[in-house]
Amino acid sequence: MRVGIGYDVHKLVEGRELFIGGVKIEHEKGLLGHSDADVLIHAIMDSILGALALRDIGYHFPDNDNDYKDIDSKVLLKRVYEIMIKEGYEISNIDTVVACERPKLSPHIDEMRRVIAEILKTDISNISIKATTTEKLGFVGREEGISSQAICLLKRK
Amino acid sequence: MRVGIGYDVHKLVEGRELFIGGVKIEHEKGLLGHSDADVLIHAIMDSILGALALRDIGYHFPDNDNDYKDIDSKVLLKRVYEIMIKEGYEISNIDTVVACERPKLSPHIDEMRRVIAEILKTDISNISIKATTTEKLGFVGREEGISSQAICLLKRK
Amino acid sequence: MRVGIGYDVHKLVEGRELFIGGVKIEHEKGLLGHSDADVLIHAIMDSILGALALRDIGYHFPDNDNDYKDIDSKVLLKRVYEIMIKEGYEISNIDTVVACERPKLSPHIDEMRRVIAEILKTDISNISIKATTTEKLGFVGREEGISSQAICLLKRK
Repeated sequence: MRVGIGYDVHKLVEGRELFIGGVKIEHEKGLLGHSDADVLIHAIMDSILGALALRDIGYHFPDNDNDYKDIDSKVLLKRVYEIMIKEGYEISNIDTVVACERPKLSPHIDEMRRVIAEILKTDISNISIKATTTEKLGFVGREEGISSQAICLLKRK
Repeated sequence: MRVGIGYDVHKLVEGRELFIGGVKIEHEKGLLGHSDADVLIHAIMDSILGALALRDIGYHFPDNDNDYKDIDSKVLLKRVYEIMIKEGYEISNIDTVVACERPKLSPHIDEMRRVIAEILKTDISNISIKATTTEKLGFVGREEGISSQAICLLKRK
Repeated sequence: MRVGIGYDVHKLVEGRELFIGGVKIEHEKGLLGHSDADVLIHAIMDSILGALALRDIGYHFPDNDNDYKDIDSKVLLKRVYEIMIKEGYEISNIDTVVACERPKLSPHIDEMRRVIAEILKTDISNISIKATTTEKLGFVGREEGISSQAICLLKRK
């Protein structure tokens, strides 16, 4: 078995749509990034690549590469899944936290879990998504950005 | 086996008592929250719920529910323990970090470990609590708040 | 098996050399600390001590002890390795993230992995180092400091 940890941050700005966990969420701001800036999927991808000791998403999907401009992060997660399978591993379980002052993520959690479980070909009971505010403290609390952490446990197929 | 990660933040304010890891600590400020705002126990509970993919503490213990007003977080930890047992899991080990500029937590660590190990019915050697400052940086460094992270490894009973 | 998590922060200041992951990196600033302030090695040490429930680096290597003044953190990592061996554990795998706005760490990652794997007497494929910016947000984004997180999975020898 192998463990991995991922951490990602994106800036909240006007004029962008907000994607978290592969789900579009209504909000007056969105996350800024070269791809769709899905902070949760990015953290999950980094945790899987990290567990496999295969560098990070910046290495695999460079943000100066036009192929990844505005790309749907679900497409990238599918590629990370394929790397994991090629290495001979599968998901044991994934747990995540999204630190976000607004909007409320709670109504979207189960849809995010379904989307991610389907891409990673694992049961929804192996995918956990939790949300927390930072009580108005720090850049998350000031709604300047959203951060996410993910941890995964992989097992040999 | 399943892994989980928890992250929690509370604001430091005057006129509240400071509870961390189930222990009351003398300090001129305390943590603000609907419950006793024990940031370390909250992170531990979220790590266990996350490992089980059973949502988060905001879902189980909503902060608009009067039942949880000023509640001792040890009571909530016991409920999370019962959920874990019902799901057929037990603690393999838990490791945590509290990021706190002041007060010094070091003298209280072993008491916190004893309190938490007793509630989770595990040996004290399976409960680790570490403390760090953030070198006066960020909201923790400015003593505006305290954050905590927890990771757990659960095994099937 | 046991899991551990480590988190460390150091301030970036002029007039210090920058050491991350046991590697000296050219930059106009360095990290401030009692030792060489290698934020990544510190997070790794704390994750290993935490997995063993043997307190933290502040407990083992107090920052008011002259023995540790400006000490190379690789020396401390070797001591933590010896503690782990004495306890009867070995590294299963380690995954880490360094949150750093500048300089770019990517060119140094493989050298860091080699240095750390050699001290911990494990294969380089068991050591993962990832880097991320925080998109100019927070103290990391303002280049006031660098933070690092590490997670480890240990197994009984």
